[in-house]
Amino acid sequence: MIEKEKLLKRTPVYEGKLLHIYKDDVEIGGRKTWREVVLHPGACAIIPVTDDGAVLFVRQYRYAVEEALLEIPAGKIDPGEAPDVCAARELTEETGFRAGSLRKLGAVYTTPGFCNETIHLYLADGLIPAHQHLDADEYLDVVKVPLADVRRMIEAGELHDAKTLAAFAIAGPHLFQD
Amino acid sequence: MIEKEKLLKRTPVYEGKLLHIYKDDVEIGGRKTWREVVLHPGACAIIPVTDDGAVLFVRQYRYAVEEALLEIPAGKIDPGEAPDVCAARELTEETGFRAGSLRKLGAVYTTPGFCNETIHLYLADGLIPAHQHLDADEYLDVVKVPLADVRRMIEAGELHDAKTLAAFAIAGPHLFQD
Repeated sequence: MIEKEKLLKRTPVYEGKLLHIYKDDVEIGGRKTWREVVLHPGACAIIPVTDDGAVLFVRQYRYAVEEALLEIPAGKIDPGEAPDVCAARELTEETGFRAGSLRKLGAVYTTPGFCNETIHLYLADGLIPAHQHLDADEYLDVVKVPLADVRRMIEAGELHDAKTLAAFAIAGPHLFQD
Repeated sequence: MIEKEKLLKRTPVYEGKLLHIYKDDVEIGGRKTWREVVLHPGACAIIPVTDDGAVLFVRQYRYAVEEALLEIPAGKIDPGEAPDVCAARELTEETGFRAGSLRKLGAVYTTPGFCNETIHLYLADGLIPAHQHLDADEYLDVVKVPLADVRRMIEAGELHDAKTLAAFAIAGPHLFQD
């Protein structure tokens, strides 16, 4: 039987630039315990598909995992920003292309065990050249990979970013049709 | 150009039960800045496939996202534990079945932007009844879903757990063959 856990008292334990951590006293089935949670503003991630059948990835160094990762373009939602607007903005900022068509695939929780981050997933095509505009502390390369190679890399376990794989789990059956 | 960021100084800012948060002074391309990181012990997640062509999911309430989620069985790696051992243990603890065969699919980073969590992904079949053994603070239901329905739910955006979708992105093309 699944019961909702009731928040009794929330205590901030760390207020950082990006991370906001709380210790919550909660009640579940009459029993009291506590949970640590990271609050996150949410994000969007986009599979950009070119007219000649390739995906535009970004490759960037990820400090937390000490590795450069191949990921689909993504970024955090600004305060008050709608997910669709964020997705269109991040696509252009990171890849330098606007979407002719932007279709929502779904939304995923990256780490529901301790964080409320939701990533809204999109498929973009009909790409139109625009201007890349990276944040001051953002360093990334745009990497174009043909769909057949993307499919092979996924099945070989060569892509390691969970949101990227989640987006292809939803879109793949259509994208990878022969 | 992608450069590695060099750690200059690590300062613990929160030491919790589950979460360990650090503020790191780093250098990138001669410039100094700082990063907040969550350190995590890593985890394993398993797609358990039954002999009659269904997947055993677990449904559990996730406090951080205030929702009951359908996920593949998963759990944190104990100190010193090998990922394969963790995967076999978590499968049995959560579903009550042992794996006749356990095959590694790959490994993913759930939130490389701020956390080092790695989830090792597995496919289990040849399931043998054993004894479910939940942690004291663990409440979950085992939910059996036929493969055809799993496929439909994924494509309809009805599964919201990123690790679950990531595992199916890798295993799906073989699992969902007609």
